[in-house]
Amino acid sequence: MNYGVVIYILGWILKSEAIFLLFPFVVGLLYGENQGWSYLITAAICLVVGLLFNIKKPKKGGLFLKEGFFVVALGWIIMSCFGAIPFVLSGEIPRYIDAVFETASGFSTTGATILTDVEVMSHAALFWRSFTHLLGGMGVFVFLSALLPMLGGNTLNLMKAESTGPSVDKLVPRIKDTVKILYAVYLAMGAVECIILLVCGLDLFESLCTTFGTIGTGGFGIRNDSIASLSPAVQWVVTIFMILSGVNYSMYFLILRKKFKQALSMEEIRLYFVVIVLAVVVISFDIRNMYSSTSDTIRTAAFQVGTLITSTGFATTDFDLWPSFSKMVLVLCMFMGACAGSTGGGLKMSRIIILWKSIRNQVKNLIHPRSVTKVRMDGGVIDAATVNSTGVYLAVFFLIFGVSTLILSLDGHDFTTNFTAVLATLNNMGPGFNKVGPTCNFSFFSDFSKLTLIFDMLAGRLELLPLLLIITPRSWRKNL
Amino acid sequence: MNYGVVIYILGWILKSEAIFLLFPFVVGLLYGENQGWSYLITAAICLVVGLLFNIKKPKKGGLFLKEGFFVVALGWIIMSCFGAIPFVLSGEIPRYIDAVFETASGFSTTGATILTDVEVMSHAALFWRSFTHLLGGMGVFVFLSALLPMLGGNTLNLMKAESTGPSVDKLVPRIKDTVKILYAVYLAMGAVECIILLVCGLDLFESLCTTFGTIGTGGFGIRNDSIASLSPAVQWVVTIFMILSGVNYSMYFLILRKKFKQALSMEEIRLYFVVIVLAVVVISFDIRNMYSSTSDTIRTAAFQVGTLITSTGFATTDFDLWPSFSKMVLVLCMFMGACAGSTGGGLKMSRIIILWKSIRNQVKNLIHPRSVTKVRMDGGVIDAATVNSTGVYLAVFFLIFGVSTLILSLDGHDFTTNFTAVLATLNNMGPGFNKVGPTCNFSFFSDFSKLTLIFDMLAGRLELLPLLLIITPRSWRKNL
Repeated sequence: MNYGVVIYILGWILKSEAIFLLFPFVVGLLYGENQGWSYLITAAICLVVGLLFNIKKPKKGGLFLKEGFFVVALGWIIMSCFGAIPFVLSGEIPRYIDAVFETASGFSTTGATILTDVEVMSHAALFWRSFTHLLGGMGVFVFLSALLPMLGGNTLNLMKAESTGPSVDKLVPRIKDTVKILYAVYLAMGAVECIILLVCGLDLFESLCTTFGTIGTGGFGIRNDSIASLSPAVQWVVTIFMILSGVNYSMYFLILRKKFKQALSMEEIRLYFVVIVLAVVVISFDIRNMYSSTSDTIRTAAFQVGTLITSTGFATTDFDLWPSFSKMVLVLCMFMGACAGSTGGGLKMSRIIILWKSIRNQVKNLIHPRSVTKVRMDGGVIDAATVNSTGVYLAVFFLIFGVSTLILSLDGHDFTTNFTAVLATLNNMGPGFNKVGPTCNFSFFSDFSKLTLIFDMLAGRLELLPLLLIITPRSWRKNL
Repeated sequence: MNYGVVIYILGWILKSEAIFLLFPFVVGLLYGENQGWSYLITAAICLVVGLLFNIKKPKKGGLFLKEGFFVVALGWIIMSCFGAIPFVLSGEIPRYIDAVFETASGFSTTGATILTDVEVMSHAALFWRSFTHLLGGMGVFVFLSALLPMLGGNTLNLMKAESTGPSVDKLVPRIKDTVKILYAVYLAMGAVECIILLVCGLDLFESLCTTFGTIGTGGFGIRNDSIASLSPAVQWVVTIFMILSGVNYSMYFLILRKKFKQALSMEEIRLYFVVIVLAVVVISFDIRNMYSSTSDTIRTAAFQVGTLITSTGFATTDFDLWPSFSKMVLVLCMFMGACAGSTGGGLKMSRIIILWKSIRNQVKNLIHPRSVTKVRMDGGVIDAATVNSTGVYLAVFFLIFGVSTLILSLDGHDFTTNFTAVLATLNNMGPGFNKVGPTCNFSFFSDFSKLTLIFDMLAGRLELLPLLLIITPRSWRKNL
């Protein structure tokens, strides 16, 4: 490992976090809250440590894929650990492990909370929670890639570690321009949603927080009932923007380039929308007698499907009370997740397509042993390494899933609780079923279980491999 | 598809089943039971249909891998459908779908039952249920491979479809000799167990049935409490033989050849025993206060681990009452399964090794991008196709798992019940948790769910691909 580069980049991350922490401080000032000062203090700490890390500038060219994955994993852990400090300083979340859980949940856009009552929190704290979704959604290192020119084109390795999906590529030749496009689409989408929410009658604070939770596919709300008490119009707006946030950003890029046909013919996008429509239809039918009107039923179904398939985790109803079939459809949506190259979590539609085509090829090969079968998507051939790594991804997923559920079971809760708690964190969802259902929270788990879930949230957000790398002792060895 | 070969082999399968059905008929005669005659009638039906299928002898050489997989899948379905007839004729299982469930459960060595009271069944029926375990355990087509000389060396394709594990190979150059060795070890192991059980004081009938259930890793018992009311000595005997039945039969072959060192250094065998010992130790510790003595605790833990890791499905205790942690250890054992090339079910230890090493290689490749990484096992290199197909296997497994659980959820039962019912059938285990726990049965499911579970049992026993092939319309096309 090239520690020079790693420490240097971590310094930048901490300096960035210092700036991010000023936002909740300002919010605190505006609302005249004492808790706001804890964000300023933490910003100062981040700045000092960041500057210390930045004293020695590394030689150019040391940022290989290994360093990229390593520093991103470490960076997310550090961001969560420092970002948790204000909660403890202000006394709003007295236990540090809980504060780290909440912050990691925010950055990883999970939205699982240990708070039993969010409405007693200060505006500064609520803003910080939601703001971490905005930062984590598109990625902090992706953002940083545009700011770190001295490291050259290698900053693509940071983006590769932080972006979602089986293969990450630049949209345009220059990394900086790619980042600009991604962030422009991201923030523009946020701006549009925020304005519509204001028009719908929400105040600016709630509009902002809800927007951050939506476009980051995070799910932290500022009310105890999440989105349930907001108007049907607001619920529809959030539903639509959640679903749009789960779309592969390449589609928006193609649309900006006016390549509409190409944009709409992306197999991943098609599958994504087909699954959503199907799920909404069958669930609406299954719960048709539970809500007062057809429009209520459809809205509730669409909201829940949107929130879970994109791994946002807002809720407008206690879907734990739904019939088994609808719940199972939701579980499958949770597993599948959104599109690659989006801010959503889960296995990702493109991985499902690759796996499905691999299965089909295997059967085809059995029928026609001499035929050459390659996995193709959107007209191009997916290279064997990507296909293979998709299988490995699945294996890692279930390895982490199994071990995590085993650790959680030490606490003695029931199988459904443990199983869906791991699913909800590893796929950056938020709520699960039973004791971690949409009306519950994660506070009752032991510290060891919370640590496991923190690992799962970060592993899920970074798509497993970076976190796997930093728990591999061999990767810590210094480069010779 | 070469239907000439397919129909011809199916004819042989039915003729074989006719012979197999004579055994429960004889048992019926010995016990003076009227129900026995239904087996003779069914044998006659099988014989007639079998002879009809065998009228036209196919040309040599049409048995490719495709036909092998196809005929094995179809053969197992047909065996289950015909083998179910006596239960209906005798009136002991009046509904045909239930009878097929029971028979498929027997042949696939699952051991899941729809019977609420097995002790009221006739000896003939109990014998047939257990006897299907013996037949299904090592495989009917494997057996047939030795009897079908006219089809030449291609009968290896039948064995490939029916044997367990990621890659099936002959132990010795000739298929016939391989089959003889496998069946000799299998039946010798059964003989030894049966004699020991007789010495332990069981009568011949119970010794035989228990032995069939053990070495076939099936799990049908002839008592309502499975093995619980039998003596500790008997429980230990069954435990040991279950575990021995989950071992890769290559080990026994190596031992017969006096290659002890090679036998004991097989990675798969080592992992298998390490997992068993670990599981027994942690469970024993976890349930230390639930049983009256340490020896009771260890025996109960060892029995449950042995029965679930080998997918046998006998029970000596209601492990659904165990603490969450122990239950989760059992669930992981259920997923892992026994060794390749054994009669046990599950993912198989060798697949776990391949997947684990693929994960390690992926991480290694990240650290040293230019290093060449191959998956090695027992000193040799596993070819890329096998590694790839292991990933695909995992994908198919979870695809079938997801769809099956979704279908079961239509019945409205809870998540744990549906989830473990599918797990228990797809891995050929038998009992699950909650409503399908070790003291329960599968009778309450709807017909559609039962059909799904029948599919899962057969798919699990034949390791997914054959069943996937016959639900692929393209494979039914006639060869040109």
